[in-house]
Amino acid sequence: MLAEIITIGDEILIGQIVDTNSAWMAQQLNAAGIRIKQISSISDDKEHILKALAEAKQRADIILITGGLGPTKDDITKKTLTEYFNVGFVENEEALENVKRIFAKYNRPLLEVNRQQAQVPANCEVLNNQNGTAPGMWFNQEGKVYVSMPGVPHEMMYMVEQQVLPKLKATFKLPFIIHKTLLTVGEGESFLAERIADIEDALPAHIKLAYLPKLGQVRLRLSGYGDNEAALQQDIDNYAALLTDRLGKVIAAEDDIALEKAIMNKLEERGQTVSVAESCTGGYIAHLFTQHAGSSATFLGGAVSYSYELKESILGVKNETLWQHGAVSEETATEMVEGALLNFKSDYAIAVTGIAGPGGGTDDKPVGTIWIGVAGKGKTLVKKFTFGNKRKQNIERTAITALGMLNTLLTRE
Amino acid sequence: MLAEIITIGDEILIGQIVDTNSAWMAQQLNAAGIRIKQISSISDDKEHILKALAEAKQRADIILITGGLGPTKDDITKKTLTEYFNVGFVENEEALENVKRIFAKYNRPLLEVNRQQAQVPANCEVLNNQNGTAPGMWFNQEGKVYVSMPGVPHEMMYMVEQQVLPKLKATFKLPFIIHKTLLTVGEGESFLAERIADIEDALPAHIKLAYLPKLGQVRLRLSGYGDNEAALQQDIDNYAALLTDRLGKVIAAEDDIALEKAIMNKLEERGQTVSVAESCTGGYIAHLFTQHAGSSATFLGGAVSYSYELKESILGVKNETLWQHGAVSEETATEMVEGALLNFKSDYAIAVTGIAGPGGGTDDKPVGTIWIGVAGKGKTLVKKFTFGNKRKQNIERTAITALGMLNTLLTRE
Repeated sequence: MLAEIITIGDEILIGQIVDTNSAWMAQQLNAAGIRIKQISSISDDKEHILKALAEAKQRADIILITGGLGPTKDDITKKTLTEYFNVGFVENEEALENVKRIFAKYNRPLLEVNRQQAQVPANCEVLNNQNGTAPGMWFNQEGKVYVSMPGVPHEMMYMVEQQVLPKLKATFKLPFIIHKTLLTVGEGESFLAERIADIEDALPAHIKLAYLPKLGQVRLRLSGYGDNEAALQQDIDNYAALLTDRLGKVIAAEDDIALEKAIMNKLEERGQTVSVAESCTGGYIAHLFTQHAGSSATFLGGAVSYSYELKESILGVKNETLWQHGAVSEETATEMVEGALLNFKSDYAIAVTGIAGPGGGTDDKPVGTIWIGVAGKGKTLVKKFTFGNKRKQNIERTAITALGMLNTLLTRE
Repeated sequence: MLAEIITIGDEILIGQIVDTNSAWMAQQLNAAGIRIKQISSISDDKEHILKALAEAKQRADIILITGGLGPTKDDITKKTLTEYFNVGFVENEEALENVKRIFAKYNRPLLEVNRQQAQVPANCEVLNNQNGTAPGMWFNQEGKVYVSMPGVPHEMMYMVEQQVLPKLKATFKLPFIIHKTLLTVGEGESFLAERIADIEDALPAHIKLAYLPKLGQVRLRLSGYGDNEAALQQDIDNYAALLTDRLGKVIAAEDDIALEKAIMNKLEERGQTVSVAESCTGGYIAHLFTQHAGSSATFLGGAVSYSYELKESILGVKNETLWQHGAVSEETATEMVEGALLNFKSDYAIAVTGIAGPGGGTDDKPVGTIWIGVAGKGKTLVKKFTFGNKRKQNIERTAITALGMLNTLLTRE
């Protein structure tokens, strides 16, 4: 079963927002055994929308559309759908009740433009929007299903989980797709490929292997397609085991999880904790840990010490260390990581200090100069890195490198 | 001038990664006066790639392709391009030198599979890849330009900035596109639309207005298209001024900047500073501030106090407050924000404490219960919010709401 996703709205095409909706929908659909053939982002333009729908229909059975359902004039998806299906508008009572409910909840007057949100194409089935005023719409035509949803992420997500997926499962007989991902750290993709070449060459046609490199990590993803779920799972497990045996310690996790989650899992197994002392990453490492449910079991917290003063007062970095060696130095990184370990009473700590840029560089310490420290009880490892001159990338690379160092420290033990 | 972006790779279609490349490319191209007609994500499949190229050619003059250039077997973009253009492969000396340079730099042996990266379609012009082994490729055919680039973000970005944009500017006469965005906080899009209906109705055909809502904020984007840059800028400025006059204090920034950046700009003008004390947002607010260049001028740092102990030791929250009222309470939020102000010696502070979920909720304090405090010298404002049950959304909504409260505090003065 194939689906396509069409996102409508100029904001993606001018790069004002990143399309996170499509990735989320793709995950949900894949888990339900529906493959995504194509994701297209198109403009709020009638002819373009009509063409994209016609093209998608040629390739897929399910067409999921997001965006362009707001109450304002630039939103034309609903009107265009009436043309595509050659139907008129009707007022939907359920959708109108929902609009009234939401305006009553926030105690705001109902404007005519809001009331129009309850006008829908005559051939659609309305999907209730728990979190907003624009109703979702489900269409059946010539064996194809079209679903139009709002582009606001939490409105769309609720609709997909509560209504679209159950209806798709009831409508189609779905095949099985199983993915298994291994997270590797510290080896480039061509070296990994060389080490597992014979295993890859011997893969049967219904199992695919993909390499997904990202900042010092490579994810190896096995994907299996078939009708027999148990046999498929067995195949995937067997090939994953072959890869795991071959690659050994390079593998940080045998799931499609983030590196920091793999670290927290290891810590949780051992009943241990971690804290952070962040200068140039400015809270990003803490955010990586705490975005995961259950992080409070192993992550105690930490300090974002941008200023000298906070490095001294929260972390106990010595004033003379800062003035003698500078904030970006081996000595400061060492005192930061050991200070975090001591003051935050964790079993492990990460500290980073550096010049993320674009300003602040000197001849001695150009932008991209970063010191990273990781420490456990009785052992501290501090290393210098020289990254590039892009702030965002420096923050991300520093975070991933620091996590990689902590993972190595944990794995060695 | 119209362009399309085609991203190749199953990882986007199964939702394993979010396509951030396209948004970035779209921003760069728009700034150069090139509009993006469509962004398509397709699979590593020969027929699909050929079809997508043929469709894109019908709509656009410039086709930018990313992904599928790695050294491993799942990467078939280059081979498919030789079929599309009906040419053979040649070894490119410059590309080979680049591969050798990179392997020498990391002191790794050059594998045959890496050497093959220097094989390119015979009709292409090679674009040097400063940050990786896969060369970029520039093709001219029948008045259309095709550019194939690696999907690894920092490889692609360097190539676009240093080579693709200059070549596009040299190849085409480009029209002007000017965008102007106003950031509004605290009003829904339909209320904004009602208040500016007459201005919107009177917009000339070459000026478009879009509403971009996101978590308590709505961006109003004016886009102008034309050949006369000065006249276009004047038009855009005039309409922006009309909107600004009408909407008044709802406008947090007259640029397409993030709310936290608007706050830092206000603080910098006044020579003031801010710090944070984060529990349930776990460093995310600090990260929002520090992702921006120059944030150290106003952002001092703060604490990520996940545990009771850190709330006491770093922020000075009283032990009896925590045990009597709990970590998620008005009392704790108040002591956290006032503790941050005092201990971090900033002019303003933000504190948040709550239950981000999915675990940790109780009958009294269900998941989504959040207390937010903002404070300046002599004034503290603490409010309770009840958000939903999704962790990621709760973290983001809490952060934006806290920033909105601080912005209001700053604007009132």
